Amino acid sequence: MASKIASTKSVKNQTALLAAGHWLMLSVAINVGFLLKLIHDGNLRIDWYGLHNGQDNGGHLSSYAAEPKPDGQIQNKYINLDHGDPTMYQSYWKQMGDRTDVVISGWQSVSYFSDTKTVCWFLEPGFANAVTRLHKLVGNAETGNRHIVVGTGSTQLFQAVLYALCPYDAPEPMSIVSAAPFYSSYPLITDCLKSGLYKWRGEVDDFNKEAPYIELVTSPNNPDGSIREAVFNGSGQILVHDVAYYWPQYTPISSRADHDIMLFTLSKSTGHAGMRLGWALVKDEAIAKKMVKFIEISSIGVSKDSQVRAAKILDVINDSYEDSKTSNESKRFFDYAREEMAKRWSQLREVVNKGQAFSLPTLPVGECNFSHHTFATQPAFAWLKCEQVDDCESFLKQHKILTRGGVHFGSSEKYVRASLIGHEEDYNEFIRRLSLINSVESP
Amino acid sequence: MASKIASTKSVKNQTALLAAGHWLMLSVAINVGFLLKLIHDGNLRIDWYGLHNGQDNGGHLSSYAAEPKPDGQIQNKYINLDHGDPTMYQSYWKQMGDRTDVVISGWQSVSYFSDTKTVCWFLEPGFANAVTRLHKLVGNAETGNRHIVVGTGSTQLFQAVLYALCPYDAPEPMSIVSAAPFYSSYPLITDCLKSGLYKWRGEVDDFNKEAPYIELVTSPNNPDGSIREAVFNGSGQILVHDVAYYWPQYTPISSRADHDIMLFTLSKSTGHAGMRLGWALVKDEAIAKKMVKFIEISSIGVSKDSQVRAAKILDVINDSYEDSKTSNESKRFFDYAREEMAKRWSQLREVVNKGQAFSLPTLPVGECNFSHHTFATQPAFAWLKCEQVDDCESFLKQHKILTRGGVHFGSSEKYVRASLIGHEEDYNEFIRRLSLINSVESP
Repeated sequence: MASKIASTKSVKNQTALLAAGHWLMLSVAINVGFLLKLIHDGNLRIDWYGLHNGQDNGGHLSSYAAEPKPDGQIQNKYINLDHGDPTMYQSYWKQMGDRTDVVISGWQSVSYFSDTKTVCWFLEPGFANAVTRLHKLVGNAETGNRHIVVGTGSTQLFQAVLYALCPYDAPEPMSIVSAAPFYSSYPLITDCLKSGLYKWRGEVDDFNKEAPYIELVTSPNNPDGSIREAVFNGSGQILVHDVAYYWPQYTPISSRADHDIMLFTLSKSTGHAGMRLGWALVKDEAIAKKMVKFIEISSIGVSKDSQVRAAKILDVINDSYEDSKTSNESKRFFDYAREEMAKRWSQLREVVNKGQAFSLPTLPVGECNFSHHTFATQPAFAWLKCEQVDDCESFLKQHKILTRGGVHFGSSEKYVRASLIGHEEDYNEFIRRLSLINSVESP
Repeated sequence: MASKIASTKSVKNQTALLAAGHWLMLSVAINVGFLLKLIHDGNLRIDWYGLHNGQDNGGHLSSYAAEPKPDGQIQNKYINLDHGDPTMYQSYWKQMGDRTDVVISGWQSVSYFSDTKTVCWFLEPGFANAVTRLHKLVGNAETGNRHIVVGTGSTQLFQAVLYALCPYDAPEPMSIVSAAPFYSSYPLITDCLKSGLYKWRGEVDDFNKEAPYIELVTSPNNPDGSIREAVFNGSGQILVHDVAYYWPQYTPISSRADHDIMLFTLSKSTGHAGMRLGWALVKDEAIAKKMVKFIEISSIGVSKDSQVRAAKILDVINDSYEDSKTSNESKRFFDYAREEMAKRWSQLREVVNKGQAFSLPTLPVGECNFSHHTFATQPAFAWLKCEQVDDCESFLKQHKILTRGGVHFGSSEKYVRASLIGHEEDYNEFIRRLSLINSVESP
């Protein structure tokens, strides 16, 4: 309510400034600015924020109220866009009713073992089949002559890849590189245990490119959505492709990805982050075996329950596209998700373009082989640049918008990464606040 | 069938040797020995064995046919007792019918977050409640003033503990010690990434006990079932208690364990190894937070699906003991499991005591505060010693019994660890083969 008044007044404020020289109106403008600040800074550090991390949260996940706020209360709350929590997808799965329900009996998930005939002995055959079927349907990755390795999210698979690719007896830790801006978790994961096997080098260009090194190629990229290829090109190069966002709701599918090691995750494909499930498609059997060995040592496999559930969900998606009857009943998953992302990006670009406070990257347009729609990449995150402020993260925090600052991604603090896949209420409030800021900051 | 003949003949063989000097009978004895060897060595290295590990399996999990074999085929197959795969429990949960069924809807497990009001933001409140209730029921651990941290098995929690206790900026990696025989996975997990934070020292006694070091106290101990306390007693000592087997089916519950850091796992309590779920009870909030941080970095939380299922299963157990009506309907979980372990240990001790080939440790007897039964610790594993052979693992392998050799546990190769919590058919076949060996090797 108070914000609504503020919003109305800030429009007046702009008009006032344009009229210029009128002291009374200038005074109103100053008051409005002060009012805005009060509204946005009032009740600073509400309960959950900073509760678990006394210090700076360092771009990690910290505690976060993921539930949408009741109407009318949201205006005074922090909007947390720091994490890519894919709660946007929840309403879709609710609409689907009991079609994706799974019943699991008490005697299931007793043994450690799922399928002793495959390299990945803890991979549930139903999940493996559903993954293969989905890739064939979407056409986003080659599955032939590849091993599927399941992991506790693609996060664990990333560590499994490092373990598999870095020889235990090498004199020096292997360099892990990625062009900035890179996913902020890469350096954290790589260096958290001070491993003697590998070491994060980020974007530095002065390492020995003749010796083996690993380049992480994330495409579409997290955080900026760019479509990427390897950039370092040394003779020692080993490539790992993080294709978590190579799905038709985020980017046109131009071809089947056909790399040696590709990492996928359920969090960003179907939106089931709480399942903690990812998979790798791996060409080389020896590498797949070493990845399996890592997952064996570090967690003796991966939750069977989540694999069973994921298989059901993926198969419901597969069926909906293969069976024309189902397809008429309700919107199919990737259609829903592409349209939702398109709507959000359209709102975001509109509000950003209305002023001079922010800018967004231009992203490539293409035709999608899956949907046959032509559209620009519409990533799960906005890589937002503050045009008039140095520390964009702190600036937005003053307006109760929590984002992850550019420095965590090896970039400038003028940038932030903001999640666009949260609850609709939070998203709308984010757009409303950006609009307010833009109108105040762009006189 | 062939083995039955061999068994009958080997009894005759013993008689023959006792009669002594009779050449014809001695020849029969030699033939029986040869026959046994043929039966047990025939079809060596069947499909799954060694399939995934070209080299020695190093005491790790390798692929393993967990399914029971159809009757009549088991005699020629390898019996895999290398892993503690708790398939013994499957028949109990099958008997329970749909009481432990869980229905999970498609819209569940979308968010990363479970409960942002607790230190462990990915801990499902229902699971936390069920765990607390179970400890109160069984009386095996103090839960007051403690934080529950959930992990992808206690394996991940062990790593989280190391991360939490070892300062990042220490000049030297912290020493991790444990009295032999120790759980074979400890050194593998500790050293697999050549961490600069910690280093496995095992049982060595020459490290600096003034400087901080971590002693792992596993009680009842894996592999030998002994009841343990800390043994190194230096001033720098930090204790971590692995109490995975401190449940009333394995050992009398003598008191509520009240240590600073205690690790539990579902695999060995209810037998749901495929859920990959463990929990830690942690006194110090700062340590709990750092453990949570590790799990955040390494897997962004723990499967919600498994937590939801586990909550249901634990609550069915809790209800069965609290509600007298349910308790009459069928055997309650811990009663079933204690009786099953008692039966297996009684069979094992009987067959071992019949000859001189093997021995087992003597384990302490006590009254259980939970069941009020008086019994000796009856561990999930047998710590079996070959009395007449040096390499016990290889010897048993010749008889198609796969176990884990003592060297993996920091002990002598005269010992092996054999799982006693597998399928009944496998267990019975193990007992039958031990009996055969004992009768041949104990003239």
